[in-house]
Amino acid sequence: MKVSKIAVMGFGVVGSGTVELFYKNKDIIEKRSGRKMDIKYILDLREFPGSPFADKMTDSFDEILNDPEVTVVAELMGGKTFAYDYTKRLLQSGKSVVTSNKELVAYHGAELIKIAKENKCNYFFEASVGGGIPIIRPLHQCLAANRIERIAGILNGTTNYILTKMIYDQISFDQALADAQRLGYAERDPSADIDGADACRKLCILGSLAFGKQIYPEYVHCSGIRNIALEDVEYVANAGYAVKLIGLIDKTENGLVATVCPRLVSVNNPLSGVNDVFNAIMIRGDSVGDTLFYGRGAGKEATASAVVADIIDAVKHENADIASLTWEDSTDRSFMVPYKSANVRVYVRVSSHEADSLKGLITTLFGYVDFIPRKQRTENELAFITPSIEEYQIDRKLALLSEHAEVRRKIRLL
Amino acid sequence: MKVSKIAVMGFGVVGSGTVELFYKNKDIIEKRSGRKMDIKYILDLREFPGSPFADKMTDSFDEILNDPEVTVVAELMGGKTFAYDYTKRLLQSGKSVVTSNKELVAYHGAELIKIAKENKCNYFFEASVGGGIPIIRPLHQCLAANRIERIAGILNGTTNYILTKMIYDQISFDQALADAQRLGYAERDPSADIDGADACRKLCILGSLAFGKQIYPEYVHCSGIRNIALEDVEYVANAGYAVKLIGLIDKTENGLVATVCPRLVSVNNPLSGVNDVFNAIMIRGDSVGDTLFYGRGAGKEATASAVVADIIDAVKHENADIASLTWEDSTDRSFMVPYKSANVRVYVRVSSHEADSLKGLITTLFGYVDFIPRKQRTENELAFITPSIEEYQIDRKLALLSEHAEVRRKIRLL
Repeated sequence: MKVSKIAVMGFGVVGSGTVELFYKNKDIIEKRSGRKMDIKYILDLREFPGSPFADKMTDSFDEILNDPEVTVVAELMGGKTFAYDYTKRLLQSGKSVVTSNKELVAYHGAELIKIAKENKCNYFFEASVGGGIPIIRPLHQCLAANRIERIAGILNGTTNYILTKMIYDQISFDQALADAQRLGYAERDPSADIDGADACRKLCILGSLAFGKQIYPEYVHCSGIRNIALEDVEYVANAGYAVKLIGLIDKTENGLVATVCPRLVSVNNPLSGVNDVFNAIMIRGDSVGDTLFYGRGAGKEATASAVVADIIDAVKHENADIASLTWEDSTDRSFMVPYKSANVRVYVRVSSHEADSLKGLITTLFGYVDFIPRKQRTENELAFITPSIEEYQIDRKLALLSEHAEVRRKIRLL
Repeated sequence: MKVSKIAVMGFGVVGSGTVELFYKNKDIIEKRSGRKMDIKYILDLREFPGSPFADKMTDSFDEILNDPEVTVVAELMGGKTFAYDYTKRLLQSGKSVVTSNKELVAYHGAELIKIAKENKCNYFFEASVGGGIPIIRPLHQCLAANRIERIAGILNGTTNYILTKMIYDQISFDQALADAQRLGYAERDPSADIDGADACRKLCILGSLAFGKQIYPEYVHCSGIRNIALEDVEYVANAGYAVKLIGLIDKTENGLVATVCPRLVSVNNPLSGVNDVFNAIMIRGDSVGDTLFYGRGAGKEATASAVVADIIDAVKHENADIASLTWEDSTDRSFMVPYKSANVRVYVRVSSHEADSLKGLITTLFGYVDFIPRKQRTENELAFITPSIEEYQIDRKLALLSEHAEVRRKIRLL
């Protein structure tokens, strides 16, 4: 029986996890795939003396590219420079590539998938979104009969950990961030996580797949959780909401609305109970209704689980591309709608001398609003939730309100 | 371009939903599959005059079997008699079959999959478990690199609706059942749902796929929710649990333990928040950890979503079987372990004159136990949760306890 030969590029956290998982579960992997497989090369510029995989190490990309035995390559290097160049050349030579590289897929997915198709091989990226959570394949295979109407996800474990800590330990954002850094859940420079860029890339991949056009990160309104205060978390908990960083794409009559921002999620929504470093993605299809996928969104072993699943599928589909995993490039962004033109409910916190006297004005501006109580509320503070109105209008009304009070916070509802 | 011709057998709820969905979303279905498709036959013994699909209706199975143009057939008739015979003959003739028929897969899955492989076609059954929730494909594809350690699911919407109503509306089982029947969520004869047989079949399918051997319904301890009293639901809510009908397979050192029974689920477990007719399935893999899949477990449109997804995949894999969707037959059940030999924690409610005086005896029997308070508890009643002990031993201890008190209820914990 022919043995399919695999190469792994990048021997960092995900790369070493992938190699270790492959050999740990090789028996069931081969049984389930009905194929014999082996890892022939591990590409890394560093040396790993004493590694049990030392005989597979190489620092030469060309060795992998030019070896006709290698049919599937796992690109686990990250970044857009070498990874982009290498991936293109591998696909052009007819080798399938699987990856966890969300940045590359979010910016060059359409192009790389097209190259794969032209060369009768595949570009797979289950590990690029939600770590080990099965989401890419369910979305393009299991929900293939559906018109997707909404994607809403908790796509970043670091921010979800911070928000969970704030709620349960009643600590500030800064304290929770320090905690996350101490535990290794947040980088020393945490901006890619807490400002939303990481969640944004993942949302772009899901959206491109669901709606058939490349959604670039620049098409998405993106704001992170730096400004969420413990006061806000307490207020909204009293009203039956949790604050979560939500990546959201809604299909509206006029086009797609895409945002990554903190949102109030009702306790009746299963996303509200997704805590700590867990991720979850809700997909709404016109036929299936709401489905939710939940699990560890990061980590060595969980991500390796998705990478190896892609390797298996790529080996099984040598010389045949998977038609359903595809989208078109879209430099014309007319299918997107400015997010402020969409209707939304928002939570607002204002401060003012004798805040209670503002209730009349607020009601006049917004119509019926929910005023939210809070234990130990100071007298010069008010919080409320508006009805669903176009966000441009909400901002105009808040501008009027700000003549009488300081608008301290505005958070959208999911 | 060749048009793949499909037949649908059974024009009931799921059958008509499948045909309607196929034509409603035919454009995206064909785009995503990269294939042209059409439904050529709809098999039903009844007549449907005036149906927009009247020209496709036939009452002759042989017409479908003998038409070489038909490559994929959706068996949506249910039952084990005709469906079994028809499915075998279709697969033997090289036509792929997709189905929502859980009974047939739970009893004859291994055999039918084997026949499919021998004839280079496929037998798919995404719709047989969890309605529209993607679970079969994620389990055998996306988690293929994992050794599965646990499957725990809320697999029956009717019982979950009843249990949810009991909790939120503080009504008895009988009242909640009557409610479910009035709304069409429960049959007039509700026994297949409330006694656990329906959940059991679905659990068998998931377990067979995850562990590679046919797990027959007779291998599974199965008890339903008839005996759950409102008192129990109230007691356990005070201790931070919800009662759910859980299908559970645990991989232990000695073999598999499989049960369908009511269990206390901690509020920290995402399964506890799955309410109404929704289903959810938790899969624990050695690499990925815990993943959860959630959605509508039944209903015309959700189930049709899964059937059409299978049709698409079957059309894409004409003349090639999917190696990973498989398990072996297993008349030898030595890989299963009696459920009472497994360790478990249980909730117990006892009644007795002056129940509080029993606390010493209970502690002596079980070691440390959690006594659970309840509002308006009568003095002659006690409820507690045991530590984790082999269930045979628990039963022996409860037999001793029953010499001093009446043991009213025993419910296992998840």
